[in-house]
Amino acid sequence: MRPLTLEIARIIDRAIDEDLAWGDLTTQSLIPPNARAKASAVGRQAGVIAGVEIATDVFQRLDPTLIVDILATDGAAIQRDAPILRVDGRAHGILAGERVALNFLQRMSGISTLTARFVEAVSGTQAKIIDTRKTTPGLRVLEKYAVRVGGGFNHRFNLSDGILIKDNHIATLESLGGGLRQAIAAAKTNAPHGARVQVEVTTFDQAMEALDAGADALLLDNMAVAEMARVVLASGKIGLIEASGGITLERAKAVAETGVHLISVGALTHSAPALDISLDFQTQ
Amino acid sequence: MRPLTLEIARIIDRAIDEDLAWGDLTTQSLIPPNARAKASAVGRQAGVIAGVEIATDVFQRLDPTLIVDILATDGAAIQRDAPILRVDGRAHGILAGERVALNFLQRMSGISTLTARFVEAVSGTQAKIIDTRKTTPGLRVLEKYAVRVGGGFNHRFNLSDGILIKDNHIATLESLGGGLRQAIAAAKTNAPHGARVQVEVTTFDQAMEALDAGADALLLDNMAVAEMARVVLASGKIGLIEASGGITLERAKAVAETGVHLISVGALTHSAPALDISLDFQTQ
Amino acid sequence: MRPLTLEIARIIDRAIDEDLAWGDLTTQSLIPPNARAKASAVGRQAGVIAGVEIATDVFQRLDPTLIVDILATDGAAIQRDAPILRVDGRAHGILAGERVALNFLQRMSGISTLTARFVEAVSGTQAKIIDTRKTTPGLRVLEKYAVRVGGGFNHRFNLSDGILIKDNHIATLESLGGGLRQAIAAAKTNAPHGARVQVEVTTFDQAMEALDAGADALLLDNMAVAEMARVVLASGKIGLIEASGGITLERAKAVAETGVHLISVGALTHSAPALDISLDFQTQ
Amino acid sequence: MRPLTLEIARIIDRAIDEDLAWGDLTTQSLIPPNARAKASAVGRQAGVIAGVEIATDVFQRLDPTLIVDILATDGAAIQRDAPILRVDGRAHGILAGERVALNFLQRMSGISTLTARFVEAVSGTQAKIIDTRKTTPGLRVLEKYAVRVGGGFNHRFNLSDGILIKDNHIATLESLGGGLRQAIAAAKTNAPHGARVQVEVTTFDQAMEALDAGADALLLDNMAVAEMARVVLASGKIGLIEASGGITLERAKAVAETGVHLISVGALTHSAPALDISLDFQTQ
Amino acid sequence: MRPLTLEIARIIDRAIDEDLAWGDLTTQSLIPPNARAKASAVGRQAGVIAGVEIATDVFQRLDPTLIVDILATDGAAIQRDAPILRVDGRAHGILAGERVALNFLQRMSGISTLTARFVEAVSGTQAKIIDTRKTTPGLRVLEKYAVRVGGGFNHRFNLSDGILIKDNHIATLESLGGGLRQAIAAAKTNAPHGARVQVEVTTFDQAMEALDAGADALLLDNMAVAEMARVVLASGKIGLIEASGGITLERAKAVAETGVHLISVGALTHSAPALDISLDFQTQ
Amino acid sequence: MRPLTLEIARIIDRAIDEDLAWGDLTTQSLIPPNARAKASAVGRQAGVIAGVEIATDVFQRLDPTLIVDILATDGAAIQRDAPILRVDGRAHGILAGERVALNFLQRMSGISTLTARFVEAVSGTQAKIIDTRKTTPGLRVLEKYAVRVGGGFNHRFNLSDGILIKDNHIATLESLGGGLRQAIAAAKTNAPHGARVQVEVTTFDQAMEALDAGADALLLDNMAVAEMARVVLASGKIGLIEASGGITLERAKAVAETGVHLISVGALTHSAPALDISLDFQTQ
Repeated sequence: MRPLTLEIARIIDRAIDEDLAWGDLTTQSLIPPNARAKASAVGRQAGVIAGVEIATDVFQRLDPTLIVDILATDGAAIQRDAPILRVDGRAHGILAGERVALNFLQRMSGISTLTARFVEAVSGTQAKIIDTRKTTPGLRVLEKYAVRVGGGFNHRFNLSDGILIKDNHIATLESLGGGLRQAIAAAKTNAPHGARVQVEVTTFDQAMEALDAGADALLLDNMAVAEMARVVLASGKIGLIEASGGITLERAKAVAETGVHLISVGALTHSAPALDISLDFQTQ
Repeated sequence: MRPLTLEIARIIDRAIDEDLAWGDLTTQSLIPPNARAKASAVGRQAGVIAGVEIATDVFQRLDPTLIVDILATDGAAIQRDAPILRVDGRAHGILAGERVALNFLQRMSGISTLTARFVEAVSGTQAKIIDTRKTTPGLRVLEKYAVRVGGGFNHRFNLSDGILIKDNHIATLESLGGGLRQAIAAAKTNAPHGARVQVEVTTFDQAMEALDAGADALLLDNMAVAEMARVVLASGKIGLIEASGGITLERAKAVAETGVHLISVGALTHSAPALDISLDFQTQ
Repeated sequence: MRPLTLEIARIIDRAIDEDLAWGDLTTQSLIPPNARAKASAVGRQAGVIAGVEIATDVFQRLDPTLIVDILATDGAAIQRDAPILRVDGRAHGILAGERVALNFLQRMSGISTLTARFVEAVSGTQAKIIDTRKTTPGLRVLEKYAVRVGGGFNHRFNLSDGILIKDNHIATLESLGGGLRQAIAAAKTNAPHGARVQVEVTTFDQAMEALDAGADALLLDNMAVAEMARVVLASGKIGLIEASGGITLERAKAVAETGVHLISVGALTHSAPALDISLDFQTQ
Repeated sequence: MRPLTLEIARIIDRAIDEDLAWGDLTTQSLIPPNARAKASAVGRQAGVIAGVEIATDVFQRLDPTLIVDILATDGAAIQRDAPILRVDGRAHGILAGERVALNFLQRMSGISTLTARFVEAVSGTQAKIIDTRKTTPGLRVLEKYAVRVGGGFNHRFNLSDGILIKDNHIATLESLGGGLRQAIAAAKTNAPHGARVQVEVTTFDQAMEALDAGADALLLDNMAVAEMARVVLASGKIGLIEASGGITLERAKAVAETGVHLISVGALTHSAPALDISLDFQTQ
Repeated sequence: MRPLTLEIARIIDRAIDEDLAWGDLTTQSLIPPNARAKASAVGRQAGVIAGVEIATDVFQRLDPTLIVDILATDGAAIQRDAPILRVDGRAHGILAGERVALNFLQRMSGISTLTARFVEAVSGTQAKIIDTRKTTPGLRVLEKYAVRVGGGFNHRFNLSDGILIKDNHIATLESLGGGLRQAIAAAKTNAPHGARVQVEVTTFDQAMEALDAGADALLLDNMAVAEMARVVLASGKIGLIEASGGITLERAKAVAETGVHLISVGALTHSAPALDISLDFQTQ
Repeated sequence: MRPLTLEIARIIDRAIDEDLAWGDLTTQSLIPPNARAKASAVGRQAGVIAGVEIATDVFQRLDPTLIVDILATDGAAIQRDAPILRVDGRAHGILAGERVALNFLQRMSGISTLTARFVEAVSGTQAKIIDTRKTTPGLRVLEKYAVRVGGGFNHRFNLSDGILIKDNHIATLESLGGGLRQAIAAAKTNAPHGARVQVEVTTFDQAMEALDAGADALLLDNMAVAEMARVVLASGKIGLIEASGGITLERAKAVAETGVHLISVGALTHSAPALDISLDFQTQ
């Protein structure tokens, strides 16, 4: 009943608490406790599904006797009006869980659908589409999962599991009389040995300085396509190169063709519109 | 330091936990603990700001000695490149809190900005723009607040604080031999006396039947504009009328001009793109 | 095993923690782990039972293998010495859960029993007996449930799910130069459309002013029976009328006969004596 | 701001969550955020006050700038209409905290008032009035505190901090071929050395057997006054004697005069009526 | 699946959260989700096992379908290379749970092994080996359990379940003009009747004074063996005598032979080295 | 008052809950609430101090008015009988916090002291001493901090923030027909780009195969010193080399002189004995 991680289980519990509070007044007022129903979650748009196990868990958390059939597993590309899951059992749990289950499914599928479009846009290149830390507060684990479902890859999860020296770090160090080289040296000494040192740069010269100072990876921030290409060329096989900033579906292919290894897209998680999905009750 | 409600304080704490985990490795590896910095959150797009106190609390939760000046209070309409808040103090807390603070501010301001556009679209009519329960799991209290900041109003918070008889309730009752009238009667008997009974209808005839059966409010689901107008006319002064389903910025005015009292827009919370805001460090 | 809402599950877990702490020292010191026992919860007074599923959950939370037979479901009116539930299995869980299970059952049954007496007192009138927010901190969801089990109805659950303008609101507004009319107007503009606006009044004139200003419901606070009757008469069919303050079992019928729709009784939850119930072990 | 124990702080937070939920809709709809007010908690009955610091903490948790003057400290015996505390500051926090603060104050003062009456009833004897584990789930720490405030003493807090061999333990052991003597021997071997071994008995003979087997204390359950006196006499100076079961205010003195050391009264916590206290706003 | 107490379940959940965080990156990157494995926990040293049910729960919490066979139950004395448990099922859960399961098993078995050595050292005397409150923060319930598994007994669990008047209490009272006798008298009046009053003393004279003042038990702190023997002799059968401070395996027997009833050893929990245990995967 | 991370704050709160529970019975029974005291934490052994801010926070969490002077900051090497911190204020908070504060301080200082001895043992080589995931469940963040205080470095925090392919991963893959090369390739494709791929090997040949397959780092498990030296030599400048398994203070120098970059020592956290520290009250 709870094969999910504890963090995900807590996210689901909080969402249920948030919507159910003291119970579903309408359903309790109208529907006999043992009335039964069948319902299907149906996509109102084409897209890539993510979150169907979360939705299943929502229903079964509310009523462990509900039977849920998953018709489109995570990662499936569905057409408009395709069924995603079917739930069968006591009407109370289905009605009470409808909105929470859909809220997860719509948001996560929105993210995987947008990710898949970016992945498609760069197909034929070696570039991977990756996410950022611009996620919804409290939902990062699910949003990063949805990116993977859509064919993308994950950047670091949080500030503890990687080293990324950003413009603001450099600015702070410069006001203390330091700079890029000192930053990279300090990172290589102090950070856990398992973490690569990545550095955000905005110009070709900074990129070269960072690689020369020992950076394992670069993040090219808002750089022109031609300049990115120059960095890739000059870096040879040293280091991973990530393009970031202002990446749109239109521009993604050109960026990928510069030879960068990674393209990060904040919009995957901060601005993906929800996929339109509804729960239809079957009339018998 | 914590004038916010306990629920909001917990949301902020969870977001900090999610991003900070074991600490900010990069900052700890590079920046001396007592280094100081000044930074400003700046809008990269015009919009209506929401969440500036949340962002402030994030910084001060990480370091209570940080000084935060709020330059644009919640509800302020800012132009591109306008400063929103300024934070001054130890660099560690500013760097560690940057992403979490911005994630709140960008999402909440995205919602208030979109809400304000809908409110503007119906200006000159009596219709209020309201939200739905299609919110991000775990963030409903903040998202509904952002709707109010944008000039909108809130529908019910959760399943416990209002009665809304939806199509799926009716479908379930019909399979048991009941129907709309029985539903309304049961709701009026069993629900707390402080809650109005609202009924979702899809046709003029259903609307009339619901009002006749004693519904206090109607939700017109995906109805054509002309048919909505007919319901408003026929209902006289009895009951509140809410329009819902497929409301776009383009269509909102026409819907409002039918005379409905309320227009609910799921996209306010499920599909508002983030407002682009960044944190710029001042170089001295 | 946990079909209850998450909030109720947490209440039960906390109660178990509170009483079990590091374990049941006495039982662990004396009784072999696999010793078995049978026991029955028995009412030592006549009354209306509430909480029998909570008591069941307490036992099964401590030992999922315990078999519990429910002999009196919630709402059953029992006679003195009637059995309420029977529990059978390992003695450790039964002994450890005894006090927690009884504490829930006795308190909740105390409330439902007192409620039933008030409901009986007003039988033959149209008045509903309702509760207040004068509940035990942390147990409101169970206490309001026990009121329903006893045949009563619920007033609002908390400050977020209804509008009730009380004397202290008016006093505050008056010190600012406002008053009743402004309060009602503000409430009708700002409150969610699903919430009725109820106003506490202490005189006939205030009652008329409130209705005239658009109040949906009145709370007549500590008013004489004759004056209540006058308000009911004058209000015609406009608005719900609730009587409150100093309602005793003796006085309830006279209040109900004034024609008020609702009678709220704080004592249901703040002063109901526990129903006397004990757990008897069967000797074989 | 939080000098209370963590457990009490959590109890207060939960009570605030329970009543505030999404905020105080009425107050937010009517009262300007900076409006100020003064209010006094006033006893509507004579009694012994307990919980005034809890009430203070409720207000200051909601708004740390509220000034609270405590006029009757815990343990003070007040007359009808005596002021208990005065609170002064922003009206929002006062109105939002009113019910939660009073709910604590009324329940705790109800317990201390009833305890004080029992203490008074046995004055002139050596008997102490003590409580039981028949407390409200989740509030035991506050209820046992209120008993002490009323002049009573506490029995054990939970199943981990004392040894009390009850009838149900004996019944279980007898079905296994054991009995009272084995129980006492096992307890003396296995229980932490800091805990006295107390045994529940219902007859004079059992009492003698328990003392003979080494019991440190007896609990005389529902025994006649004359028989209690006989046990006290026969026990000499060996062991503490507690009387329990059916102790009323009327009967308490006679029980105390038997010479028992302790009289436990479940009603102190399970059936004490709330003390009537209200919050009056000052009109200026 | 969760027959353990709630406190232990929470300890396990926290340990899993701590190690798993966002998931087991290595395993997820390499191993197909349905790959199966068999593994055995094997002792690399001889010792007394404790925590095997905790380790089992860790695995089954991560994957409820894992089959765990317990080969050495808590309390078993194993030889080097003896198998402790065998786990069989999906490789993901086994690999993810390995470290957490072993961390519990190694620490708890370290404690029970050291305890057993102390118990062995005093065999043939009446002295019991007991623990102290010098436990690892957050793990006390498990560490005290491991002491019992090793044949030891528990001192009090926490500051609420016993009375132990220590040197620092006396020092504080002396600075107020009081002393040992007043301390004992106050304790006997105010403490719950179920708790014995134990007093820490450092000299023979203090010991005699404490017993004369009514102490139920003594703690002889860092006293010479000969002086302890004198106290035991002089105390006759009055009171329990505990020896404490600087008890080593070498010195334990001599201390026990003085006739003290209890010997407390802080090192059992604060300095026991982990028992070396590893998880070996079976190659097929 | 709470400048620590939220996770550390929670660890402290749980430790306080664990020891304080319902309050400090002894202190409450004996000592007047306003009695004052001064006390010093003093090392009974020489060592390296860690945790002095945690200890400070424990006291101030219990009583925010206590004044704590830190005399030995984290990382200070103290001699026997050196004072570590001084606390001054109400006696209640000092007595109640004593054990919890010392439990943190003793354990953390035990770890930093042992770490410093290992660091000293390898001084003059380039090898860093690092920890493992063999930490006390629930205390990893503090134990890894104590390692850093002692001059060591941290291995990965948990299973989410690094890639370490261990023997059990390889064993599982081999039973599926795969092996080391496939494992490394899969890790490089699927893992976040910020994480280096480290591989555990037990022979020279495995080491060469892993480097050839693209491993970024090696963990040499229980390898002979001569064989380690051969791996270092053969690996040239490719990859980081970590030695692990059976590292004692005696053997550390020889291992370091092979040229390995990292030496991991499980005993730092799983078997460090507590540093002996006590709290002495000042007599005036």
